[in-house]
Amino acid sequence: VGTHRIEAFSDAVFAIAVTLLVLDVHRPDDTDRLWHRLGELWPNYLAYVISFLLIGLAWANHHAMFQYIAHSDHVLLLLNTLLLMATAFLPFSTSVLAQALSTGDGERSAVAFYGGIVILGGLFFNALWMWARHDHHLLRADLTPASARAIQRVYLVGPIFYLIGTVLGLIQPIAGLVVFAFLILLYWLPLPVLTKSGHGSPPRRR
Amino acid sequence: VGTHRIEAFSDAVFAIAVTLLVLDVHRPDDTDRLWHRLGELWPNYLAYVISFLLIGLAWANHHAMFQYIAHSDHVLLLLNTLLLMATAFLPFSTSVLAQALSTGDGERSAVAFYGGIVILGGLFFNALWMWARHDHHLLRADLTPASARAIQRVYLVGPIFYLIGTVLGLIQPIAGLVVFAFLILLYWLPLPVLTKSGHGSPPRRR
Amino acid sequence: VGTHRIEAFSDAVFAIAVTLLVLDVHRPDDTDRLWHRLGELWPNYLAYVISFLLIGLAWANHHAMFQYIAHSDHVLLLLNTLLLMATAFLPFSTSVLAQALSTGDGERSAVAFYGGIVILGGLFFNALWMWARHDHHLLRADLTPASARAIQRVYLVGPIFYLIGTVLGLIQPIAGLVVFAFLILLYWLPLPVLTKSGHGSPPRRR
Amino acid sequence: VGTHRIEAFSDAVFAIAVTLLVLDVHRPDDTDRLWHRLGELWPNYLAYVISFLLIGLAWANHHAMFQYIAHSDHVLLLLNTLLLMATAFLPFSTSVLAQALSTGDGERSAVAFYGGIVILGGLFFNALWMWARHDHHLLRADLTPASARAIQRVYLVGPIFYLIGTVLGLIQPIAGLVVFAFLILLYWLPLPVLTKSGHGSPPRRR
Repeated sequence: VGTHRIEAFSDAVFAIAVTLLVLDVHRPDDTDRLWHRLGELWPNYLAYVISFLLIGLAWANHHAMFQYIAHSDHVLLLLNTLLLMATAFLPFSTSVLAQALSTGDGERSAVAFYGGIVILGGLFFNALWMWARHDHHLLRADLTPASARAIQRVYLVGPIFYLIGTVLGLIQPIAGLVVFAFLILLYWLPLPVLTKSGHGSPPRRR
Repeated sequence: VGTHRIEAFSDAVFAIAVTLLVLDVHRPDDTDRLWHRLGELWPNYLAYVISFLLIGLAWANHHAMFQYIAHSDHVLLLLNTLLLMATAFLPFSTSVLAQALSTGDGERSAVAFYGGIVILGGLFFNALWMWARHDHHLLRADLTPASARAIQRVYLVGPIFYLIGTVLGLIQPIAGLVVFAFLILLYWLPLPVLTKSGHGSPPRRR
Repeated sequence: VGTHRIEAFSDAVFAIAVTLLVLDVHRPDDTDRLWHRLGELWPNYLAYVISFLLIGLAWANHHAMFQYIAHSDHVLLLLNTLLLMATAFLPFSTSVLAQALSTGDGERSAVAFYGGIVILGGLFFNALWMWARHDHHLLRADLTPASARAIQRVYLVGPIFYLIGTVLGLIQPIAGLVVFAFLILLYWLPLPVLTKSGHGSPPRRR
Repeated sequence: VGTHRIEAFSDAVFAIAVTLLVLDVHRPDDTDRLWHRLGELWPNYLAYVISFLLIGLAWANHHAMFQYIAHSDHVLLLLNTLLLMATAFLPFSTSVLAQALSTGDGERSAVAFYGGIVILGGLFFNALWMWARHDHHLLRADLTPASARAIQRVYLVGPIFYLIGTVLGLIQPIAGLVVFAFLILLYWLPLPVLTKSGHGSPPRRR
């Protein structure tokens, strides 16, 4: 299986997962005082925005990573499937998060559960890269081992910071969410430090 | 990230969003007097048709716009994700609209909410183009700055007219819907004035 | 907009519509006497199989038709969107059909409603081809006008036979379903008469 | 219809089916004691993981098989559609399985039903290959008939082992599930015996 097809399949899963998020925002059955009822759904909107930006980011990072990967093997395919499995699970943890914020019950658990799934995805992401650069056997020849190692360090930052957000969320749920939102913004904004690192300006392949 | 992949990912999100619309049309549980019950669902059919044509149009415009964009950067990617985020939210506002038309309650709010999401998408659409033509740094070299500016003017017409429809909808919901339907028809029909402007006959790229 | 992108977008809508069909088969909440309960869902399985084969067929025909279309314009795009709109609506009419077969109420209406949506799709399909071959302005140069006309005749057979099935269904629902199933089989099986006509062996494009 | 489009369409169906699995994991409405409630959903998580890996595997095998197929015809298209029909049905049997494991009722039937759908897909998979290698008329010229026959033997192993798991599941449901999980792991792990066979290292096509 060439990486072209892996990327196409992964792109589709990312696109579907991100678009399914809207199915967890349920319209009110009663539509009198509609503005009020729509306003009450703010936790759903918040969760939608966070998860949409997060999955969009995961897609962008996934694509950037695969620009460095030239070959694939069985293990890469398995790790990629596990990464997609964690990503495609996000609509569920998003739904749990929105419900906990709505009811005011279980917010700590919901933020930690949400963070846990993100961390799981981040670990599979790192495992995939670790496997690809093991003996450099799946990477492009023009990427130096030192660069591959530097990229790994950048990738490892994600799960570590999400772990901090998750632990913080267990104490103070809103603080955890703020950390998640901050991390998403940090990666989306074109900070010089990031654009110089791994996924800012990868070598063009096509 | 080359624009080819951004387009493929965006295409998938548009296609999924448009196809998810049908999930908001719920079959009647009781099927006696079925024609009558199916007839009662007219607000759902109406909302389905309007949103299908609208998202189909957004896809066509998005594709036409990217025929002029040669490069991408972090900000473009973020603005595109925000545009997709607003588009993928349309199944929800469509569902709210259909429910308000069914119950007869909250129609003003529902039309305005629907229009608001469309305007939001239109603003991200314009912001994307504005960023791309800033210093002309992401556009094709063979597009003149004057043309890029002219295209922007055409793009700005959308949100302005949807704003008029939205305000009108707050006063008289059906009037607002008629404006939305009219705008969709206006863009779909091959009017000479439109085909001479931005997205009628873009330079072929492939 | 080149036909390549129209085809890719259409393929995605067909693929999503066909896969959403499964969402209308609801698992029983109680799982005692599970075989019995799963058996009771036969109308859902039947409707799933019919619609899956039908949409799969629509995709194959759509693809075959676009192998003859070399250019696109605004009207073609609109007609294609209307065709997709009718196709993406099939999960709803499938759901109505399965429910009517389950309850035993409204079967006549459900079969006719189902047939009506299929006919609508067939009409848009024919309108698209009619537009494309109008002055031969969107067709490949190597397709003769006589061939284009012959293909139209084959395409027109679909809606006419579905109309017969629909009318029959209004009198005797099972008879209507049998006609639909027969039509689907007729097109799927490699009958010599069909493979010699329009969509059997189109000129390879890539 | 060239195999390129069949593959793209199939890829989309696999990607959607795999991502729809998450829709069967329903968030708890009450979120007090959330960890406890999330823990109770273990059957849903288990079913999600098994089906995700299984459909991911089916995609990988499908793609590997099509690397040997050079041409397509009506029958191939029909068999492929039937294969997709069985695959796209897996979210339903997954949902039934999770529900039976949750309630503790009907586990035998649920495991057997699940296995039965997998076997059905496997049979269509084998029928497709059998048709393609019939007179070698759809295969690549550089694949020897002996290799094609050897690949068929590997493909036949799947349904046979799933049949064993299904029969075992009728007696002892957990044992059946363990067999399914074992089969999935067996195919995913890069065992030398497998990588030397059919879908380990197919000739590159692009």
